[in-house]
Amino acid sequence: MSALPEPARPRPLLSSASTRFTHEARVVDEFGHERVVQMPAERDLTLYLDKRELVTLMTMGGQPELLALGYLRNQRLVTDIAQVESVQVDWDVNACAITTRGGVADIEARTARRIVTTGCGQGTVFGGLMDEVGSLRLGDTRLTQGELYGLLDAMRRHETVYKSAGSVHGCALFEGERLLLFTEDVGRHNALDAIAGWMWLEGVSGEGKTLYTTGRLTSEMVIKSAQMGVAVVVSRSGITEMGHRLAEQLGMALFARCTNRHFLLYTGRERFVAQPELAPPVPPAA
Amino acid sequence: MSALPEPARPRPLLSSASTRFTHEARVVDEFGHERVVQMPAERDLTLYLDKRELVTLMTMGGQPELLALGYLRNQRLVTDIAQVESVQVDWDVNACAITTRGGVADIEARTARRIVTTGCGQGTVFGGLMDEVGSLRLGDTRLTQGELYGLLDAMRRHETVYKSAGSVHGCALFEGERLLLFTEDVGRHNALDAIAGWMWLEGVSGEGKTLYTTGRLTSEMVIKSAQMGVAVVVSRSGITEMGHRLAEQLGMALFARCTNRHFLLYTGRERFVAQPELAPPVPPAA
Repeated sequence: MSALPEPARPRPLLSSASTRFTHEARVVDEFGHERVVQMPAERDLTLYLDKRELVTLMTMGGQPELLALGYLRNQRLVTDIAQVESVQVDWDVNACAITTRGGVADIEARTARRIVTTGCGQGTVFGGLMDEVGSLRLGDTRLTQGELYGLLDAMRRHETVYKSAGSVHGCALFEGERLLLFTEDVGRHNALDAIAGWMWLEGVSGEGKTLYTTGRLTSEMVIKSAQMGVAVVVSRSGITEMGHRLAEQLGMALFARCTNRHFLLYTGRERFVAQPELAPPVPPAA
Repeated sequence: MSALPEPARPRPLLSSASTRFTHEARVVDEFGHERVVQMPAERDLTLYLDKRELVTLMTMGGQPELLALGYLRNQRLVTDIAQVESVQVDWDVNACAITTRGGVADIEARTARRIVTTGCGQGTVFGGLMDEVGSLRLGDTRLTQGELYGLLDAMRRHETVYKSAGSVHGCALFEGERLLLFTEDVGRHNALDAIAGWMWLEGVSGEGKTLYTTGRLTSEMVIKSAQMGVAVVVSRSGITEMGHRLAEQLGMALFARCTNRHFLLYTGRERFVAQPELAPPVPPAA
């Protein structure tokens, strides 16, 4: 695992305010029978950056500190983790107080523009991300078909809120087929930002990593993955035209419609080591 | 259909800039075979309200004018459709120019606060929506199990981009089991806002209507439905805790996990006329 140890780097002080993930609901089904089912939690969490209200996120609350860090990083509001002094979540007031060392320069300008995207769970990405695409350079990460299958098997075996309650999106970071971190939230962007927050906190680069998401590969998902330095992205779900176009520009490999041993590779063929002999015996109807 | 004709009301001038919905992608499957598949379009559309940049939405572009109107309405930026003079979409510059009669009062304040929600396709809802929940009053709309089945059958038969390309969310407005309007977009909030825009434009009230969505019933979906005066909401997908709680406060009926002839009624039992005799013969595993 290509972690970059920086012993000298001051580590932010994080609270550990992970909350209950699911709640029960009493429902009636089509037979008129009462049933008790699980729902994912959904809470509002307002981020304050140096006491300035930044944004309110709707989250399941599983990894609120990593979510806050990832949000800051993916929005490029703070560029160096060493600038972050502490991240303190308090569910009594649904607030997350982020304090930096020395404050954030021109925060007014950084938070001025608003783009509403297809992001589930985090629709807003501040202006400028699109402009970054041209300057992003991704390493020569590759993925074999065997690793892809191993990754999908690992996800299938993983215990998730989705399996018990549905209505959440999952995201996972892999090195080959080894699972490094799994996150879930009511929106796929929160799940992705929590991964970004962890990578930022631990100094883990995207080099050699594969990102798995249950969500669709829209423009913002592709941009965020690229910002994290991840060149291979795998989705259980589909893709949009702009996600596809951006991935081509970035030279990123996008796998979508990944279920069981089926998948479609949309972009970045040079990053994929095909092993069709590992494919299921009977081709599906094309 | 309970349209409220207002012949005297000045009608906004709308462009008709519906764009191509899908694009082809050349992909490689697990057998190493090339295939051509469809992807939904995803384009950025920047809304300008009286020449002031408001927001950039990522959209498939199917009903951009209705989307813009619905966004204005659901964000409560303009309260009366008669205030809207024109909505002109120009894909050459990916811009939608909305002009009002007499301008919008205190727009600065109205657009000041930002909440990032679980909204796919429209994550941002300006502050204050939550505050409205207490004041919203919904009519005594009811739905029978037979009407629910008719509605689900209509959706199953409906031709959709989803069926050809996936990766989009659909939304539909019904009166009983009669389909009034169907919309699709890369995010479920865009699809919902386009419905809201149409209702606003045509003077259609939510009384006696049922809203169908392929998306999850999160807090924002419930709030927007209530703002539209719709008291019965049906989802193919799931629900979150906050969506559930808000619906209970609002006295709204929420049906989720609606597939084939199965469904779960989460809230608002008083609005549902159960007909278990219409349920499928064999109960599903609970």
